[in-house]
Amino acid sequence: MSVSSKPIAIIAGVGPGTGAAIARKFAATYPVVLLSRNPDTYTPIVDAINQSGGQAMGISTDVSDSKSVKAMVEKVKYEHGNTVKCAAAIFNASGAFVRKPFLELTEEVLDASYAGSVKGSFLFAQATLPLLLWSTTAPPPPTHPPTLIFTGATASVKGSALFAAFATMKFALRALAQSLAREFGPKGVHVAHAVIDGVIDIPRTQSYGLPKEAKIDPEAIADAYWHLHTQPKTSFTWEIDIRPGVERW
Amino acid sequence: MSVSSKPIAIIAGVGPGTGAAIARKFAATYPVVLLSRNPDTYTPIVDAINQSGGQAMGISTDVSDSKSVKAMVEKVKYEHGNTVKCAAAIFNASGAFVRKPFLELTEEVLDASYAGSVKGSFLFAQATLPLLLWSTTAPPPPTHPPTLIFTGATASVKGSALFAAFATMKFALRALAQSLAREFGPKGVHVAHAVIDGVIDIPRTQSYGLPKEAKIDPEAIADAYWHLHTQPKTSFTWEIDIRPGVERW
Amino acid sequence: MSVSSKPIAIIAGVGPGTGAAIARKFAATYPVVLLSRNPDTYTPIVDAINQSGGQAMGISTDVSDSKSVKAMVEKVKYEHGNTVKCAAAIFNASGAFVRKPFLELTEEVLDASYAGSVKGSFLFAQATLPLLLWSTTAPPPPTHPPTLIFTGATASVKGSALFAAFATMKFALRALAQSLAREFGPKGVHVAHAVIDGVIDIPRTQSYGLPKEAKIDPEAIADAYWHLHTQPKTSFTWEIDIRPGVERW
Amino acid sequence: MSVSSKPIAIIAGVGPGTGAAIARKFAATYPVVLLSRNPDTYTPIVDAINQSGGQAMGISTDVSDSKSVKAMVEKVKYEHGNTVKCAAAIFNASGAFVRKPFLELTEEVLDASYAGSVKGSFLFAQATLPLLLWSTTAPPPPTHPPTLIFTGATASVKGSALFAAFATMKFALRALAQSLAREFGPKGVHVAHAVIDGVIDIPRTQSYGLPKEAKIDPEAIADAYWHLHTQPKTSFTWEIDIRPGVERW
Repeated sequence: MSVSSKPIAIIAGVGPGTGAAIARKFAATYPVVLLSRNPDTYTPIVDAINQSGGQAMGISTDVSDSKSVKAMVEKVKYEHGNTVKCAAAIFNASGAFVRKPFLELTEEVLDASYAGSVKGSFLFAQATLPLLLWSTTAPPPPTHPPTLIFTGATASVKGSALFAAFATMKFALRALAQSLAREFGPKGVHVAHAVIDGVIDIPRTQSYGLPKEAKIDPEAIADAYWHLHTQPKTSFTWEIDIRPGVERW
Repeated sequence: MSVSSKPIAIIAGVGPGTGAAIARKFAATYPVVLLSRNPDTYTPIVDAINQSGGQAMGISTDVSDSKSVKAMVEKVKYEHGNTVKCAAAIFNASGAFVRKPFLELTEEVLDASYAGSVKGSFLFAQATLPLLLWSTTAPPPPTHPPTLIFTGATASVKGSALFAAFATMKFALRALAQSLAREFGPKGVHVAHAVIDGVIDIPRTQSYGLPKEAKIDPEAIADAYWHLHTQPKTSFTWEIDIRPGVERW
Repeated sequence: MSVSSKPIAIIAGVGPGTGAAIARKFAATYPVVLLSRNPDTYTPIVDAINQSGGQAMGISTDVSDSKSVKAMVEKVKYEHGNTVKCAAAIFNASGAFVRKPFLELTEEVLDASYAGSVKGSFLFAQATLPLLLWSTTAPPPPTHPPTLIFTGATASVKGSALFAAFATMKFALRALAQSLAREFGPKGVHVAHAVIDGVIDIPRTQSYGLPKEAKIDPEAIADAYWHLHTQPKTSFTWEIDIRPGVERW
Repeated sequence: MSVSSKPIAIIAGVGPGTGAAIARKFAATYPVVLLSRNPDTYTPIVDAINQSGGQAMGISTDVSDSKSVKAMVEKVKYEHGNTVKCAAAIFNASGAFVRKPFLELTEEVLDASYAGSVKGSFLFAQATLPLLLWSTTAPPPPTHPPTLIFTGATASVKGSALFAAFATMKFALRALAQSLAREFGPKGVHVAHAVIDGVIDIPRTQSYGLPKEAKIDPEAIADAYWHLHTQPKTSFTWEIDIRPGVERW
């Protein structure tokens, strides 16, 4: 067991794009814990951070499974100590993107979308909020207010045709973020929601044929999240939207 | 089997307040099918409608259970014929109202809220949309465009503190309604969502100590739903809000 | 001077489309007063209403000019008595529709848009609210709560590119309606706003080449406004949107 | 005439609070031009910036007067050269805050609110956008995309009772910002709007009796604006909200 006295950042949903950029950004200041179901997803990012002087660990976690989330917290405490503080928790996981005529959607698809987006964000918030709250009370006071950020999408604010399964859960995630912002803001925890309104420039979207300038830069998302994290408790932003300048909206 | 050539209205979530008022309103024009889990809930309303010259039947249905919803459709077809048309389908069911500190919410409460609000509305929409679409194509043309209405609440558009479980699912329901409006409006089905922003004047809220004028009249909700139903396909309203004139908002 | 003991409806912005339909609808119940700058606009509608058994008068009014609006009120009182009650006041006037690159807009265009939409609605509301409030207090009580309705557009909720002059004023009109709804709802006056989200089927839009079903029916707008007017004071709708079922939004 | 080859920042509405903080923040990187009607307002800020190694000038300007705005641009060009580039333009001016029963508002108050908020922001945007666009085309390319930011308030998104004059114009300002974001984003200019949702911690609000933590820190607003300015053109935020963590909303 290696006890770190530094507060940590926990990031759920770490792929080769946004999650990795967020992880690198926060790893410049905090030890980071990266969560994804498949270790193959976080391992290269963990390795890269550790090799470049940061401190990172990955934990294979299914955020939609409460037992898996509890085990994750145990592992975090084992590694970082029982009195570990959390400086930032970022929910960047996403249920599968589904675009389908409504009458072709199955109950299973809806359940999976619920599990990934809503149940997952709920369990993640329940697991990390005690550690975030602890940061506000245990001395020394935090450099920045502890922060809980949820990544949303266009479908968080617009229920387009054929997006019934996806938009329901993104709307729900936004409601969760808003309710938590109102409950935990007065307690010193900054809860925020980001509407990522466009295609992100990650390996998976290379094939979309979009010009570079039409795709959101994951580093810019990470910078925005870091900015949110640095806001003092007198001046919290609840929601930002991010989109390419050329985007039609 | 009694075959009715008249299109029917199906109303899910029929209690002594809004559901009953909607049922009576639509029963003035259509045979109505009332759904609730417990027959004790719909029986008095069914009886009252039948005794006053209308045509009503109740079907014990758990809208969050796909088998139960399928059995409901079978029963509707048995009673009203395999080629039954649906003029209006109204989802007025509500998951349990939960107001609780976030860290005291259990996974079970979230799941129940999902089942009642989101899964329920999803399965109800999948069961009724084929009957609504059928109304648009099978001659004679409908008097009014077939209509699918979802009942929302303040929490559909505002995630208040302590309402995480309730607001997530109400936001999700609103997303579903919006997505379906965009998909099925061009096909001639009118999908609408109502933000009921206040306390409804029903037996359960008698004890709230509010003056009569501070509580929404269920008959007025029913009138509004009927008005939505009568809108021609050139002029659909997607969303209305309803609140007492004295309400602070 | 012909004194009418019946409450009246006043409609600003009466052209051959929506305004005329609203006038006819409300004239079925109330004497109506129709306002537009040019008498040629209201005369045919006034005549048609009077010939079909209704009671209508037109008053040439520039709603953006306080003197003109005051003179209108004097004329209304001269015709309908000093204690005239207003059952409904509807602001259907619209500043000129402007779609232009921002850097080509002139200050004069902005001023004209302000005058027509914002100043006009402000003066109209200030002129009619005393008559609407009077309806709530002078016996006998009104059949329906006195109602003040503002007609908005897509640009009331979306600031599209090239719509800077138009959208600013439509957003402003919506703010006015919302503020008045909150101030006067508790006093028994129903204030509402309608987002007319599409092309209206009027003579001027014949040339647009749109199929009939893609254009909003003015009669349906009038029906919706009448429905708003009939809502009891326990159950006010603040905002409705109206669009063709086939509209993309 | 002192020609600066560095792009400048222009800030309208510079008082001892937010405007001053924004000015200091941007002065760390750019020569700044501060606008207010009364030189007494900007002089101490200009002096402080110049004394601490920055470069600042003030220009007495009435942003609601097109001649005054044109003269300001002339003066800027005289000082910084005819080919001056603008890196950031920030509209922080505000019409007078008015809270009054609607029927007590005068036409003059509405006109003044229009002039200060809408006409002012319109003229400011028309004056600065050519300089912002110039930054995107004239070599060398800008370090950060040129940015136009508008300061809004709670009343930008909520028309409260008694706020008719104030909210109309704040809604209008938001519409302007949104329309410009859509028009000029594709051209490489970042247009953003900030909903400042709370009391700002400035000398004028000392008497409000609020605890320090319940008031927004002007430095935090400046930091947020700077962050917006640094976003790359693939990743623009259109709107942020800022409020104290303890705020009820």
